[in-house]
Formats: sequence, C-alpha cells, structure tokens
Amino acid sequence: MVKRYLSVVSLDKALSILEEALIPLFPETIPLEESAGRITAQPVFATYSVPEVHLAAMDGIAVRSVDTVGASEQSPVTLPVAIRVNTGNVVPPEYDAVIMIEDVWTEDTRYIIRKPASPWQHVRPAGEDIAESEMVVPSHHRIRPSDIGALAAYGIVSVKVLGFRAGLIPTGSELVPPGTRPGPGQVVESNTRMAAAWLSSLGGRCTRYPLTPDQPDLIRDTLSRAVRENDLVVVSAGSSAGTRDYTADTIAGLGEVLVHGVAIKPGKPVIIGKIQKKPVIGMPGYPLSALTVLREIVTPLVRLSGIPVPEPALIPARLTATLHSESGTDEFVLLAAGRIGLTWVATPLSRGSGVQMSAVRSNAYLRIISSLEGYEAGEVVPASLTVRPAQAEEAILITGSHDPVLDHLAELVQQDHVELHSTHTGSMGGLIALKRNDCHAAPIHLLAPDGDYNTPYLEKYLPREEIALICVAGREQGIVSKKGISIDELPGTSFINRQKGSGTRMLLDHELRLRGIASGEIPGYDREATTHIGVALAVKTGEAEAGMCVYSAAKALGLPFMPVAQERYELAIRSEYMDDQRVMALVKAIRSPRFREILLRLGGYDESIAGVQRQVH
Amino acid sequence: MVKRYLSVVSLDKALSILEEALIPLFPETIPLEESAGRITAQPVFATYSVPEVHLAAMDGIAVRSVDTVGASEQSPVTLPVAIRVNTGNVVPPEYDAVIMIEDVWTEDTRYIIRKPASPWQHVRPAGEDIAESEMVVPSHHRIRPSDIGALAAYGIVSVKVLGFRAGLIPTGSELVPPGTRPGPGQVVESNTRMAAAWLSSLGGRCTRYPLTPDQPDLIRDTLSRAVRENDLVVVSAGSSAGTRDYTADTIAGLGEVLVHGVAIKPGKPVIIGKIQKKPVIGMPGYPLSALTVLREIVTPLVRLSGIPVPEPALIPARLTATLHSESGTDEFVLLAAGRIGLTWVATPLSRGSGVQMSAVRSNAYLRIISSLEGYEAGEVVPASLTVRPAQAEEAILITGSHDPVLDHLAELVQQDHVELHSTHTGSMGGLIALKRNDCHAAPIHLLAPDGDYNTPYLEKYLPREEIALICVAGREQGIVSKKGISIDELPGTSFINRQKGSGTRMLLDHELRLRGIASGEIPGYDREATTHIGVALAVKTGEAEAGMCVYSAAKALGLPFMPVAQERYELAIRSEYMDDQRVMALVKAIRSPRFREILLRLGGYDESIAGVQRQVH
Repeated sequence: MVKRYLSVVSLDKALSILEEALIPLFPETIPLEESAGRITAQPVFATYSVPEVHLAAMDGIAVRSVDTVGASEQSPVTLPVAIRVNTGNVVPPEYDAVIMIEDVWTEDTRYIIRKPASPWQHVRPAGEDIAESEMVVPSHHRIRPSDIGALAAYGIVSVKVLGFRAGLIPTGSELVPPGTRPGPGQVVESNTRMAAAWLSSLGGRCTRYPLTPDQPDLIRDTLSRAVRENDLVVVSAGSSAGTRDYTADTIAGLGEVLVHGVAIKPGKPVIIGKIQKKPVIGMPGYPLSALTVLREIVTPLVRLSGIPVPEPALIPARLTATLHSESGTDEFVLLAAGRIGLTWVATPLSRGSGVQMSAVRSNAYLRIISSLEGYEAGEVVPASLTVRPAQAEEAILITGSHDPVLDHLAELVQQDHVELHSTHTGSMGGLIALKRNDCHAAPIHLLAPDGDYNTPYLEKYLPREEIALICVAGREQGIVSKKGISIDELPGTSFINRQKGSGTRMLLDHELRLRGIASGEIPGYDREATTHIGVALAVKTGEAEAGMCVYSAAKALGLPFMPVAQERYELAIRSEYMDDQRVMALVKAIRSPRFREILLRLGGYDESIAGVQRQVH
Repeated sequence: MVKRYLSVVSLDKALSILEEALIPLFPETIPLEESAGRITAQPVFATYSVPEVHLAAMDGIAVRSVDTVGASEQSPVTLPVAIRVNTGNVVPPEYDAVIMIEDVWTEDTRYIIRKPASPWQHVRPAGEDIAESEMVVPSHHRIRPSDIGALAAYGIVSVKVLGFRAGLIPTGSELVPPGTRPGPGQVVESNTRMAAAWLSSLGGRCTRYPLTPDQPDLIRDTLSRAVRENDLVVVSAGSSAGTRDYTADTIAGLGEVLVHGVAIKPGKPVIIGKIQKKPVIGMPGYPLSALTVLREIVTPLVRLSGIPVPEPALIPARLTATLHSESGTDEFVLLAAGRIGLTWVATPLSRGSGVQMSAVRSNAYLRIISSLEGYEAGEVVPASLTVRPAQAEEAILITGSHDPVLDHLAELVQQDHVELHSTHTGSMGGLIALKRNDCHAAPIHLLAPDGDYNTPYLEKYLPREEIALICVAGREQGIVSKKGISIDELPGTSFINRQKGSGTRMLLDHELRLRGIASGEIPGYDREATTHIGVALAVKTGEAEAGMCVYSAAKALGLPFMPVAQERYELAIRSEYMDDQRVMALVKAIRSPRFREILLRLGGYDESIAGVQRQVH
C-alpha cells in the first residue's frame, strides 16, 4: 500500500471539493406524527378543500338571503324555508346565509326575523382554509408541530422527508466502549456517539459499527460494508499520517482520497474521500478536532447535498483575551459568551483538542479566518452561538479564583434558568476581569497586609468603582498530601503550586514568610495548577507529594489535609449589576438553605458568613 | 351533572393559577445516545479524571527533567534513563517531561539530547480535561451532541432526563382520523397530533387515546384512564359551554376545574383543571385556538413545572396592516415576517381560528396585550419568531395579485433556501404595499386604458421610485363555470367576483364595458373571493354558476374555461432590492427551464415572456 502524506488545502478549497462528493440523499416516507423537525422531500398539495362545503359559522338558522329582504322591527318576515344549524354544520346548497339564533323568533314550526340577512353572512365558505390543489408546504420545509396539525387536517398521514443513512466507524486499538473505565493507554470511544447525535439532528439515520482495531484489513472490511449500507460514512480516528493511521490508505484502496489535511485548527488531519460515489470522511480522533470537523466539514456537506441546516446566530462579542492564530489556518476557538450590561463579552476556553469540557462549557465559537493572525483582547469579534440566543442571554460570566462550590452554585442557578460559566484565572485575574468589565462577578480571596480580605485590593485596583462583595463562604486552606504533611514540612517536599496571582499562592507565600521558609527550598514551587482539584489530583497521581488547596478538594479525592488558614472567599460585583436578574439569582443561591447544606456537607467552609454583603466605595 | 359556564379570567391570572396544577415530572433514565435535546434531571459528575495519568503530548522520549540540565549543542547529554513514547502514551511516574523525537539522537540504545527539558514539557497532565468529582453538566441542562461526546468519554452511558407522560384525548362525534376524507359535517382529528408533536419537543412522552364521541360516560372513562396513566392530560375539544361540551363537567366530576375560560383570542374556551394532583387541560377544538392554548397555556405549564423551554426570539417589526383587538383580551395574531432592507416587516395572516394555513404560512406571531385595542399599520411591534432567526432572514414577502404559479415559485426558491410568503390583496393592494415598502415584490396585472399593463400605474402611484418589472408569464383570464358559460352570457348568471382592486376584477369591468354589460345585470357581482382557486371552488361547490379566473385554476378543479383576455402578470420590485439574494433567487426561479415546464404543464400561460425585465423610471 502506498503511504500518503498530508497535503493540506485551505478550508474554502475543501468546501468546494465537497461538491464532488455529495451525499446521495435517501428520502424516506415516515408517519406524519414522527415528522417534527424533519425536512420535506417534496411539496405537499391539498387533495381536497377544507372545508369542502359551506359551514355555519354561528348557531342559528340557514336561510336564503333573498327571503329576508325588507325584514325590520316594523315588518317582521316569516321565512318560507329555513333550517336550524349549529356552528360547524353544513349549510345546504339552497341556502346562502346564516342568521344568529338570538335574532330568530319561532311561531309554530316557522321562523320569524326582524332584520335582513346579507348574502353569505355567518357562513364559513368552502375552501376558507385551503382549496383543493393548493400547496400546503413546499419541499425543503422544516416541519413544525403546527404544520403537522394542518397536514393531518388535510388528510396527509405520511410524508416523504429528506434523509440519509450514515455509517460511523470507530477505529483505534486503544478504544474501549463508554462505561468501561479506561486503563492506562486506553481511551473511551466517544466520537462516534457525538457524531451520531450530530448527524441525527441533521436528518441522518445513523449506524455505529463495532470498535475496529488499527488493522488495515479489518478497517477495510468494515469500511466496505459501511459504504454498501449507507449514503455517508465517517471513519473516526486514524486520519493522520502516523505509522498506525490507516484511514487514508484504506479509503484510497477502495475509492479515492480527494483531500487529506485541511488548514483548520483543530481538525487538520481530516480526510475527504469518495467510495462508490458516496462521501467518506476521515474524522480525527481528538474530540475537539472531531467536533470541528463535524461542524465545519460534515455539516456543510449535508447542506450542500440538499438538506437545509440553519446557520448559527452571530453575535458581536468583545473578546476578554488575546488569541494568536497561525496565518494560513482557519482556527476555531470555543467561547463562553454572555451579555454584560448591553455588551456581549466572550471568554476563550482551553484550546487543547483533548479538552472536551471546553465544548461542554462553551455556548459559542469564533472562527479566526486564515488571513488573520488572531485578535487582541478587547476586540469585538463575530461569535457564532451554539445555543439559542435566548439561552445565551441566561449566561452569567464568573472570572477569578476557583472553588469546587462553584459547580454547586452552577447547579443551583441553573434551576432558575441562569447558566453559570466560570473561568479560573486566580483572584488577581478576577480583579483585572472585573476592571475591564469582562465578567459579571469575580470570586476573590486576597489577603491584605492588614489582615483584611479583598477590600484593600478593590480600593487600589478599582478606585472609582462601586463594588458589592458577596461572601460565598469562609473557607479553610491547607496542605493536601498522601502522608498528612504540614506546611512546616514543605522544604524538600515535591510540591504542586497554584498559578501566580491566585489568592491561594499569595496566601501560601504569606504563610511561608511568617515561618521563614524560602520558596527555593520547595522543589516544584514553580509548577502550576489552575484549580484546587487540579492540585489535589497532582498529589493523588503522585506527580507531587504536597500542594495547597481547600479542604473540599482534598476530601473529594480522599486525601489527608492539614489546615493552614481560614479565609474569606467573596464575589466582587459591580454595584450596577446587582439588580441584573442573573446576578440576583446567583446571590439568592448563595443565600439559600440548600447552599448552606452543601457547604456543611462538603466540609471546610464557614457557612455562617455565606451571603453576607459588604460594599466598597 | 351541574352545568358550568365560562367565567373568563385574564391570561396573567390563568398563568398564576397554573402554579396550583403543576405537572408532577416523571424523570426517566435513557441511553446517553438518545439524549440529544433532552434536559438533565440531575447534575452529572465525573467519576474519574480524564486523562487519569500523565500522557505524552508529542511523539518522543519521556525523560526526568533533572537529567537534562545543562544539555547544549556544545555539551550534549547522554540520558541515563528514558523511554520512547508516542502521542497519547502514558508517561510513567518516574518521568516528568517529554522531548520531541526530532530533538533526540540515538547511540546504541541510548538517547542523546542537545537541549534541556523543562519539567512537564509536552506532557498532557492527568485531569487536564476533567478531574474526578468535577461537575460535567448541571441539572436542567439541554444536552447537545458535543455534551454526549464528553459524557461518553467520562464513562456515562445513561442519563436521567426531565420528562413527563402526556395523555391526549380527542373528543367529538364529528371526528374522523386523518386519511379518511371527511364527509359532510365530519372533521379530521388533527389537534392531538399537533399537541403530541408539540409536547414531545418539550420532553413529553405522548399517548393519543382513541377518538371519543361526545358522550359524557365515554369521555369520563377515557379521562380517568388517561389521568391514571399520565402526568398531564389534554382533552381536545368540548371545552366550550355548548350543549355538547362535556369536558368541563367531566373534569369537575373527577376532580376540579380551576379555570374555565381565559381572555385570550383565539383559545378563549380553555379549561385548566386538576384531577388527582395532575393538571388536565381542556383544549378548544378550533385548530388555531388549540395552537394558541398549547403555546400560551401548556408551554408555560411545562416551564413552571421545571422543564426549561426557551422563549421565542423577539424582533421589532413594522406592521403592514392595522389590527383591532378587544381591550381586556390578549389577542395573538399570526404573522409572515421578513426583513426588507434593514427593517423587519410583518404581515398579519387570516385570524379565522379554523384557518390552519395561517399557522403554516406564519413564521412569527404578535401578542396584543389586553390593555391595548390593537396596533396601527406602520407601528413597530414586538414579534415573536416561531422559526430560527436565520430562517426568518430567508423570508421573501410577496404582496399583491394571486396566481396559482406562486405556489410553484415558492417550491423552486425554497430549494435555494428562500421562503416565499405571499399575501393576496389584489394588484392595487400590491401597489400600495410596494409604495409603503411592505413587501419585496408585488405581483400585479393592471390594464391601463392605453392597453399597456402595469407601467402607467407604477408611474402614477410610485412616481419617484425606480421599479423593475419582471414578467412572471403572460396569462389567459376567462370565465370558469360548469356549463362553459362565456362572458356574454353573464347577465342573469349567478356570479362570484374577485375583490375590489384586483386586476382580475378590473379586467372584467373593462371587458364588460366593451360589451355594454352593466354589473347590475350580474347577480352575485358583489360577492368576493380573494384567489383564482377560490373563484373556481365557489363554482365547483355550486355557490355560483360562473366566475372569472386564470385557466390553471379552472383546470386544477377540472372545470370548463372560456377565454376572455390575455394579460401580463408581472412582479414589481424596487430596483434597490434587485441585488437582494432572495429577490435574485426569485428572479432566477422565474427564468429557470423548470419554471417554463411548469407553465406549459399548467396551461393557459405564455411562457415565452417569463423572466422578461422592464424598467420604470
């Protein structure tokens, strides 16, 4: 087999090449009741009129309008013919009007009226809703529940919708199925699950094939079968040009590789191929690469093949961080976006292509087009939403010091339709974000020389801003280790530190100074983790013998904890946002009995000061 | 049984009463793969870290960084220990850095380097993606495909999602199932189909019960069973206070009626009840009343019960017509909205509560709150979109004279992602809409005294506007009847006319004048239909003996046609919009070979002038 190499093409070029490998759509006829959200494959016409005949629009009597001419209070008319009708009853052909029952008097079996009826009054004419032969919906129409109601009323019981069969092949000898805890060197196969959910939402009927090890003949067999059984095939992983990357060769062996490598990041080693006139996509194995390929290559392919897929809504958002990007590459960066005051603000999330949580945490993304080398912090960029605009409006952006209780607060506010997005920059990072108006609230715990927390820093760094401080909790910081090491034993102990500017590191430095310990005596002092849990995990995995974190993080991973100090973990919020609904929900959550219970359960928190408000300026 | 009467409460009051009848949610555990779009019932936490151990982030060798200190080009270092790793391989605990393979030289079995490695370089740390105990998603989170990927990677195979079981009971002796052509007085049951699709999209697991005739004991039996088997029950129809409306009494007999009648239009006779602590909604039978109740009563109920449902996007739109509304009633009017230039414009659709096509044709709706008596044409109102904003951007608004080929054009442009919304006001109505900038294009056929079509009218009514005229087709107008009646035979023949201001009526008047026939000689001259098909249908149902319409309408209903005149049916478009993408797609469709084939197939059109462009001013 000839080994092929990546020869990278631009995204625009790749999109134009997709035209050579369109999905042969496979319209299917499905029961009308199951068609919500699907796309019609052909126009639907009414085969009869609704209503088919004239109906009474009121309870009353059907009359011939000519018989009513001249009727008045002074000269009532006794009708020669008329029949009683209720709303919805047929008005027989010989009648051309309905008189409301309250305007009718009866004498024996005859009806008397005192007002003339104009022709066709109170008659619901045949065809009022739709006339025979008129189009109900065109093709390429996304069916809504109200369309289903109308189509059912017009006699339609099944509809032909656009669709395609998609085969998804997970390859890789390291793969284990979800639910199996991965051993060393094993990876849980998740990408074909994501792809199946993604493609189903576009009208695909997805089949996931069994886990296929990195063996060329096995991959070839599964691929041949998948091409036979589907209209589109996605091969997950093995799409690079490494020694165990067989996807490109296998596609080339059975058909044709049109593109191997697209200048996008993440997702560069994508393959666009064609076997028996059906598109075959090689999707890279890193989860965010796979996501990017689904969104930027596979979705346009579906759209080009004839299924309308709505484009994401764009919002202009101010970036909170500078993003460098390689010119010549279209880079996609996941964002947590929220509206602060009147302005949309977007915080870039981790760009590691193995960090699936970036996708979970994001509600938007940014394309940095290939001609740009990035964006500066503060620039307004076009962000594409991955949630509905109304949901993005629910986002509250929290930037600063991390604490495990933020997860629990996120859970509490979510019940109030507020989506908490937290970015962990440490307390000083939080202050800067607050100053720049890049967040709704900054969690901070900055010990000042006078022993007070937070207020001296706010007075210094945001001297002209009115700030409210809401205490999340008092909390205990201490040394986490496997052996119960105390702060005095740190010299000579391998250590995992927090990043510069984090309150925890500043507290550590303060406590070390008090004890006359120099940071140089602590090996690993420069190694940084960005969260308490990250510190505890480094200790648990043996990367370090000790670190400093909050009690709840040590407890979560079942590690001994030696207390060092109690501190005040507070949310700094510009006073002008204190009546923002999202901020109010967050403060309400902090003050709720539920949250106090959580603090008590987690341990290491002083819940008595949770919710206490202070004011700076 | 006590007969209860409507005692109408305000919508706000009804919404507050819903709090007394919340749906007891029924969370269900479903396979992760089927969870896209569902709402988590509880937070999901990671049970292990990803990755669990440190992994190589590059192909190379794992080293102890201390061994590399001092390495340089001048003094290469031979490493005492090191092992070969590929990207994704485990970095064993004794190592703390990875050196890229291109920076490594080998001698026998030993590795030589010329650059020191900093600790933890090219190592993907344990917990980089997520650490054990961290929250993946909170409760009340709408699951996206990318969330499914992450959850699968973190070992999750099933999720508990919020849901409820909904029972839907269609009542009414007049009902027949979809697919059965309704006889006189029969109605196709479509509302529970619409409700099932609607509630499914909100997380409901729906059961439709059999058609239940208007018999109190049968309704009671089905209702008891539905309440036992579900968490929410919707009874379709029978919710008014007429002699055959048993829904309220039946609910009262088994439980409690909290509200009978809400001041909304359509949808007033809605019932909010409670049986065995489960909400029971009486949904009116008129389709648009049912739709309004689903949107304005049932959806808030689901939301209040704890399932987040996004609110529709609001756009500010200029109304094209005055809407009167009764003060004291919240009225909901369906709209066809489109962006014309930079402005959103919204055309109200038929308010008849039996006109389901209004829902099909709409992409938005307007709430006229109870304190208002309506809106004036030209006012900017808050319109709620029922489609995604991106789809609403695809709408092209066509206002003016009707022709059956507009359906076919709608079908052709839909394939280009353009959604054609046409409103039938007649040619003069089209001119006015064009003048007010209320539409993208106005189809008109206005015969001037000099024999020319359209241009003299545009010059008179829009004297300062540059207008392009695109000919849709030449077309034949004539007399439709069952007996082949000609225009000369109209005196004494019962007639169905078109509305004032329609080109067809103006043409008829012109032709009658030529022949010396007075309109008074034609019975029914004042009876108006608004479309060609409407005219033909009135003739087919026997409502009138003759009418004037285009050949294709007569042909569609299989009726004889006696030609009267050939005319020029053109689209008038402001020149400034000729490069609007939607307008370009429409013009392209008119000029397409497909459209010419359609004109030939329908008959009665001169396809040779289709697409011809003229310019006014």
